Amino acid sequence: MTDIVTAGMIVIGDEILSGRTKDKNIGHLADMLTAVGIDLKEVRVVSDDREAIADAVNALRSRNTYVFTTGGIGPTHDDITADSIAFALGLPCGYDDKAYRLLEAHYAKRGIEFTEARKRMARMPEGATHIDNPISIAPGFHIANVYVMAGVPSIFQAMLDNVIPTLQTGTKLSTRSVPSPLPEGTIGGPLGEVQKAHPDTIIGSYPQYSDNGFWTEIIIRSRSQEALAAATEAVENMLASMQPQEPSVN
Amino acid sequence: MTDIVTAGMIVIGDEILSGRTKDKNIGHLADMLTAVGIDLKEVRVVSDDREAIADAVNALRSRNTYVFTTGGIGPTHDDITADSIAFALGLPCGYDDKAYRLLEAHYAKRGIEFTEARKRMARMPEGATHIDNPISIAPGFHIANVYVMAGVPSIFQAMLDNVIPTLQTGTKLSTRSVPSPLPEGTIGGPLGEVQKAHPDTIIGSYPQYSDNGFWTEIIIRSRSQEALAAATEAVENMLASMQPQEPSVN
Repeated sequence: MTDIVTAGMIVIGDEILSGRTKDKNIGHLADMLTAVGIDLKEVRVVSDDREAIADAVNALRSRNTYVFTTGGIGPTHDDITADSIAFALGLPCGYDDKAYRLLEAHYAKRGIEFTEARKRMARMPEGATHIDNPISIAPGFHIANVYVMAGVPSIFQAMLDNVIPTLQTGTKLSTRSVPSPLPEGTIGGPLGEVQKAHPDTIIGSYPQYSDNGFWTEIIIRSRSQEALAAATEAVENMLASMQPQEPSVN
Repeated sequence: MTDIVTAGMIVIGDEILSGRTKDKNIGHLADMLTAVGIDLKEVRVVSDDREAIADAVNALRSRNTYVFTTGGIGPTHDDITADSIAFALGLPCGYDDKAYRLLEAHYAKRGIEFTEARKRMARMPEGATHIDNPISIAPGFHIANVYVMAGVPSIFQAMLDNVIPTLQTGTKLSTRSVPSPLPEGTIGGPLGEVQKAHPDTIIGSYPQYSDNGFWTEIIIRSRSQEALAAATEAVENMLASMQPQEPSVN
């Protein structure tokens, strides 16, 4: 028996869509979720716009176990993630007492004014639970099945490290890799037949290029060890039956 | 007067969602579109699944001038982009004569079998126009307002170079950058007031860290040179009126 746990991700920020900042969080979240057996099903990158954020949140949270967001939780006017999540969930958004006191004490200790802008970082939808931020104090939060984290990669990663152990995880996809000296164009047909015959596996092929020309990495994934072993054997038998006779092609 | 041209992007592939491959195309497309005055409004990363691809295509193409896709146009069974685009548009999908002959000649010249798998790369929705592929021959295509390109970054970039000059472009957003020695938490409130007073601009702030501690890059963007100049002056005046007195904070 296998458990399937799925996730969606929303990357929030005009700066990603303008190209000014290059996203580094999608690949990290994908790696981390895969490692614990959660399937990342879809990612959306949206602008700093309340309706765009809320639409994405509601679309992804209705069909996934979890939704993770990055970006838009800083102190400035374009940091509207907390309000947009509250709007999406139909919840009031205001200062979270615990976050407010945490930030107030943090700035007081350093003799820094707790400005209206800094107070914005204490805004959360009513009922939210903190996600600790060991780097710059201002917490992320989680509400319903939505986890709201920072966009700065180091802070996002630190927050995610706090979140991952609290998640329900699924049966991990196990992976086998079979190198093929033959290019995709040669093995594509037979490989498709193997996939059809092994529906409990996901078989992908990835063209690679080395000094010896094109070759193909075949990746077989499954939640069932038996299915994985059977499909891997079928791929290996398929390759053994084909002669590596062609020069470097795609 | 300004013209607004918008775009959506769809990144297709299980390998991005599993973390096995790290996307390099979002940032490149964002840069290229910004350079020619096209606003990238949303990006979706979806799996190799016909319904997921078709839903994303129809959602994004209905509200943007253009949609660009990357990935899923190779020779194997999991390359289902052409069929999924045809499905989304309600068009038949089959071998495109010109693409078929192009690939047939390409493989014949090299003495390589034109397998069923390789023939898949000639599949396109009826009525599609080619996007030339100078690297590995198999063309991308465009149909209606959807541009379908390869996922391999070098091929995607070469295809995009062929597409960009054919696009309707908008009035470019001009950008000014104003460095602030003060952190976001200090300038956030006043900066929000400047944004409110200059609605024809988009003002963003980006925390930076150097050896001297946190500082903030303020980016002002507008399609109007007059609005840009006025907002930039307002930001500079705002900063001049604030004393840089605080140590490194966020």
